[in-house]
Amino acid sequence: MEEIRIIEVKQSVFEDNNKDANELREKLKAEKTCLINLMSSPGSGKTTTLKALAKELSGKINWAVMEADIDSAVDAEAMVEAGVPSIQIHTGGMCHLDADMTRQGLSQLDTEKFDLVVLENVGNLVCPAEFDTGASKNVTILSVPEGDDKPLKYPLMYETCDLLVINKVDVMDYFDFSLEKVTEYAKMRNPEIEIICISAKTGEGIPELAKWVLETVKNWNN
Amino acid sequence: MEEIRIIEVKQSVFEDNNKDANELREKLKAEKTCLINLMSSPGSGKTTTLKALAKELSGKINWAVMEADIDSAVDAEAMVEAGVPSIQIHTGGMCHLDADMTRQGLSQLDTEKFDLVVLENVGNLVCPAEFDTGASKNVTILSVPEGDDKPLKYPLMYETCDLLVINKVDVMDYFDFSLEKVTEYAKMRNPEIEIICISAKTGEGIPELAKWVLETVKNWNN
Repeated sequence: MEEIRIIEVKQSVFEDNNKDANELREKLKAEKTCLINLMSSPGSGKTTTLKALAKELSGKINWAVMEADIDSAVDAEAMVEAGVPSIQIHTGGMCHLDADMTRQGLSQLDTEKFDLVVLENVGNLVCPAEFDTGASKNVTILSVPEGDDKPLKYPLMYETCDLLVINKVDVMDYFDFSLEKVTEYAKMRNPEIEIICISAKTGEGIPELAKWVLETVKNWNN
Repeated sequence: MEEIRIIEVKQSVFEDNNKDANELREKLKAEKTCLINLMSSPGSGKTTTLKALAKELSGKINWAVMEADIDSAVDAEAMVEAGVPSIQIHTGGMCHLDADMTRQGLSQLDTEKFDLVVLENVGNLVCPAEFDTGASKNVTILSVPEGDDKPLKYPLMYETCDLLVINKVDVMDYFDFSLEKVTEYAKMRNPEIEIICISAKTGEGIPELAKWVLETVKNWNN
């Protein structure tokens, strides 16, 4: 297997994160590269969802993935196996990525070659929501086993996200999870949030998610 | 229903967290109160596990729960319904509790009345592991749907925990989760870590977990 590039990024000391984020967004806009910041709890299925998207997006778009983790390269390895150019960022123990760390990572990808880069953030519902990474859109995944009360407990994550992907709907029958409740709670945090239900495992809902991604990229380039 | 007390705690500015943690541990030792710091991803089943323990520990021990969340009081409400004295801490957006925040919360419980207080930390595998809360023991829950690779990605959580509880084993057949792998990865991070498998939903493994809790409390008082 191709060796995974691992990039160690460091939090900048003299940071003005909002300024950094806006500069990065403008640079990516000029390159016609859309950046999607994908966030969730650990184990919600971020990488499995991206692998499912890889099949659906194949031939329709040039895209790459930047995986962020504290340790290991298992996610970047999985994406390369799925045929998507990927790099692994290690955050040096940090619980989130800020805009400058995102920039450091992206500098190791030829971003201008890609229509889309997905940043798979550190699995964490708290800290990643506090830092604008410079992304064009923020997406969060909530998996059915986690429960429908998460928007009550992690308000900022839902306030900052444009799209809520509800994953693992194939196991809905085994868990006490109400789509109606989670929709109510998520819209309470963010009335504009879009919601798409998927099972990254069975493929259910993946065409709809791929359509959302393609439209987001198209809108970014207009 | 009894009204839940919600306590807003603030991170101390002039902090020496290790010193604060040791002072709190000594105070609790003198009071013969054991403090267990319970950590996990969002939705791993911390509260459901504590509710299952409530039945098993009933009449055997005096215990209370201190729930920490950024927002909502749903967990403390659930514990009071289960008959366990509980308070809800709000962290003001913070992703973890430090020792002084723990002390502020505990000061609202008559800790000397209890053999055990369980602190249910903010759902997060990164930041809570970085701060000694003053607890006697650290416990983490990993639920089967999250996957067996979590010790690879979140090393510090596994290094700092005395016990790993593997929850939701009742849905093992629906997920690609290897007990052998997770044991290998967890022991790689911490060779001393103990592992107990449970289903908080069906009650499987709860007697074993209750036994661990009772022994931990007993050892703390000796």
